[in-house]
Amino acid sequence: MKTEYDAAFMRRAIELAKKGNPFCHPNPLVGAVIVRDGRILAEGWHARYGGLHAEREAIRSLTEPADGAALYVTLEPCCHQGKQPPCTDAVISVGIRTVVIGSRDPNPKVAGKGVKKLREAGITVYEDVLKDECDALNPVFFHYITKKMPYVRYKFAMTADGNTAVQSGESKWISGPASREMVQRMRSENMGIMVGIGTVLADDPMLTCRLEGENFRNPIRIILDSRLRIPMDSRIVRTAGEIPTIVCAEEEKGELTERVARTGDEASSEGHRTQEQSECSSKRNAWAGGFGQNEKEKALLRAGVTVLRIPASPRTGRPDLRKLMAQLAEREIDSILLEGGGTLAANALREGILQEADAFIAPKFFGGRGHAPMEGEGVAFPEEAWKLEIMEIQRYGDDFFIRYRIKEAEDVYGDH
Amino acid sequence: MKTEYDAAFMRRAIELAKKGNPFCHPNPLVGAVIVRDGRILAEGWHARYGGLHAEREAIRSLTEPADGAALYVTLEPCCHQGKQPPCTDAVISVGIRTVVIGSRDPNPKVAGKGVKKLREAGITVYEDVLKDECDALNPVFFHYITKKMPYVRYKFAMTADGNTAVQSGESKWISGPASREMVQRMRSENMGIMVGIGTVLADDPMLTCRLEGENFRNPIRIILDSRLRIPMDSRIVRTAGEIPTIVCAEEEKGELTERVARTGDEASSEGHRTQEQSECSSKRNAWAGGFGQNEKEKALLRAGVTVLRIPASPRTGRPDLRKLMAQLAEREIDSILLEGGGTLAANALREGILQEADAFIAPKFFGGRGHAPMEGEGVAFPEEAWKLEIMEIQRYGDDFFIRYRIKEAEDVYGDH
Ligand SMILES: NC(=O)c1ccc[n+]([C@@H]2O[C@H](COP(=O)([O-])OP(=O)(O)OC[C@H]3O[C@@H](n4cnc5c(N)ncnc54)[C@H](OP(=O)(O)O)[C@@H]3O)[C@@H](O)[C@H]2O)c1
Ligand SMILES: NC(=O)c1ccc[n+]([C@@H]2O[C@H](COP(=O)([O-])OP(=O)(O)OC[C@H]3O[C@@H](n4cnc5c(N)ncnc54)[C@H](OP(=O)(O)O)[C@@H]3O)[C@@H](O)[C@H]2O)c1
Repeated sequence: MKTEYDAAFMRRAIELAKKGNPFCHPNPLVGAVIVRDGRILAEGWHARYGGLHAEREAIRSLTEPADGAALYVTLEPCCHQGKQPPCTDAVISVGIRTVVIGSRDPNPKVAGKGVKKLREAGITVYEDVLKDECDALNPVFFHYITKKMPYVRYKFAMTADGNTAVQSGESKWISGPASREMVQRMRSENMGIMVGIGTVLADDPMLTCRLEGENFRNPIRIILDSRLRIPMDSRIVRTAGEIPTIVCAEEEKGELTERVARTGDEASSEGHRTQEQSECSSKRNAWAGGFGQNEKEKALLRAGVTVLRIPASPRTGRPDLRKLMAQLAEREIDSILLEGGGTLAANALREGILQEADAFIAPKFFGGRGHAPMEGEGVAFPEEAWKLEIMEIQRYGDDFFIRYRIKEAEDVYGDH
Repeated sequence: MKTEYDAAFMRRAIELAKKGNPFCHPNPLVGAVIVRDGRILAEGWHARYGGLHAEREAIRSLTEPADGAALYVTLEPCCHQGKQPPCTDAVISVGIRTVVIGSRDPNPKVAGKGVKKLREAGITVYEDVLKDECDALNPVFFHYITKKMPYVRYKFAMTADGNTAVQSGESKWISGPASREMVQRMRSENMGIMVGIGTVLADDPMLTCRLEGENFRNPIRIILDSRLRIPMDSRIVRTAGEIPTIVCAEEEKGELTERVARTGDEASSEGHRTQEQSECSSKRNAWAGGFGQNEKEKALLRAGVTVLRIPASPRTGRPDLRKLMAQLAEREIDSILLEGGGTLAANALREGILQEADAFIAPKFFGGRGHAPMEGEGVAFPEEAWKLEIMEIQRYGDDFFIRYRIKEAEDVYGDH
């Protein structure tokens, strides 16, 4: 193998993969090139959900025989029958002699099987070429398949002096038009969008994607609202008939017991609840904006809202975000854009459900302290900080955008 | 004039100018090229204070006659006798026929005179070529000469969630080694370094430049400390014998009257002081860390500290930062690195003395609210924000650096 030679073709496959973005969701982005004697014979990528896989697209666009050629593909070819017949069969049948693979398939049902089948057919297979770059094409896909949890991105707009709103809570607008258009795209690229009730009460947002065209769609709206304070005349409740909307409230005592009886493992977290948390959560449960909890819940259901009841976390005394994420993953929500505010975001960080942070930094100062990206108490010592890694940097108009990966998110899961 | 042709040579002159950085301080950075028929005959830049000006350096390095050539220079050539004879004479004497100028000289004593002298000698002069880029070479020089105030840069290190310290005040370390080395360079490039007493009490800093070599020097240390709370055993006081140190305290009533009698204009600001501010400042004056104000002041003087007494600002009830800046400008301090904390920085912003903000953004989260880049109350509405403009973006190790110009600083001065 000539390393630089291989890297060049894999880089081309990565470029092709990106053409699929974001419309092949929830399938991964994949790119492929077929090469002989240093010349590209054909290219392909996975363009949309249910469409041809990248390898098959490349094979289909061949204009000459591929005998003895090499296939560069960003993800291990599949060997099982899905919406499409297995790609390994097609690769073998056209006479390809070498396959160079970037990412291994994260799906345990498939991992390694594609490679095995190719090798059994006498094909030489190289793995892990530009693996990190190839993995980075599909953070949601890898995370969702291996963890069975949604990939959660916290998006926030802040001033250069770290404010996400002025003291009164007003935050319109911090970032400029180009950033706000990008946010609309991000909404379309994530299956869910999540905010705390604080943000709903402050901003009365719609949380829809306002871009038009077949490539855009509204994410499922998820509101964290332990005590069902959400106003019946909020824009979210008024549109819940058309746009899927989930309100996540705290489980009431009776229900909790029932659930514990069913799932078992929640009993222990209930056991850990401190006196203080129990008091505070029962006080909070007593109030649901004029209605009793049940009446308000019924009214919401009638308006088209799905109400999920989640037990409180022993750490935060509020609906347990890990349990909520597990339930959302079961509903096939693989990706969530957390749009704030700082109270919910800080708990999401502490509970280890955040994978990514997307910061829009606007060139302005509020000149004091309003709201912050994270509210509540932070770490006690600088060295206890959560570590991030820069994934991407962009200018959007006058704003500056930094996309971070939260490095320790996985470790936090580890100790769950 | 062929615009692209001129821009190319001016760009080369700008590159040359930057070679002087930062050792020609407080003189401006200037670069020059001599060109004939599209070929560069000679180049020069202003390398150090008191050394040859850029035009003369270029002329000196000519290896052939310059008859009929064009001079590209980033700043209008001087026509008065300073440490060096006037550059206009040299330009005329070597037979240069065309002079292309970037910035006009901000010094009212000189502005336009150099150009006039060149034209009188029959030379064709073009002005304002790449003017903005040329002006940006010397923000300190332009500001100091035109405003007679130091150019103040607020440097801060913050986490991606907007914290400059954890709740206890601990901030070691937020940024990484590469950023911290850059801060050492910034210290050397500014005449003064300024912090509030809060930062001294929290961190006991030295505020020196720890880089070695003839090109590095310690800035003059300026501590804002109304009530002389600075500990006698702080590292700053202990080293005040060797490193120039100014402590700025609030003027006491008696002294204030004396000063008012002398300068007149301070009487009006005293008249504006609200009841509350007077009470609060006299309460604060009563305490000076165990000593009476006078005893403490004497002890500081003995330790080598310069104590400046500045009347309180009617806006903030603390030493008036504009008056302080005017005094520092008289002491030929043209540039100040404000290293925090947030309380002093917020007042500096409000009083319109800040020209620039230099933010190091570290890839980490504290996950809650500690200290912020600006403390105290911010604006009431997002649209009242101070507007910034991005001047420079860099990576330092894992950190991200953004240098902003504070756009409205000049307007704030305007209404003073
Ligand atoms: N610049 C930006 O990017 C941006 C984005 C969003 C918001 N904002 C601003 O941020 C402000 C709102 O901030 P906020 O912190 O009050 O709002 P928030 O985080 O949206 O809402 C917090 C509330 O959510 C509820 N909640 C339910 N489960 C929770 C859980 N597991 N963890 C945490 N909270 C949970 C809690 O109320 P209950 O106990 O009643 O359930 C909590 O008080 C507004 O001013 C808004 O404009 C700015
Ligand atoms: N990450 C960073 O870049 C960075 C940089 C510096 C500091 N920090 C952190 O910030 C914290 C200190 O913050 P801070 O806000 O308390 O400190 P600060 O701004 O350094 O000091 C504020 C104090 O300065 C005095 N002062 C005198 N004249 C003033 C004026 N005109 N305007 C404002 N203040 C004036 C006041 O005390 P008197 O009334 O007694 O005079 C005031 O309480 C520490 O935890 C430190 O570690 C972080």
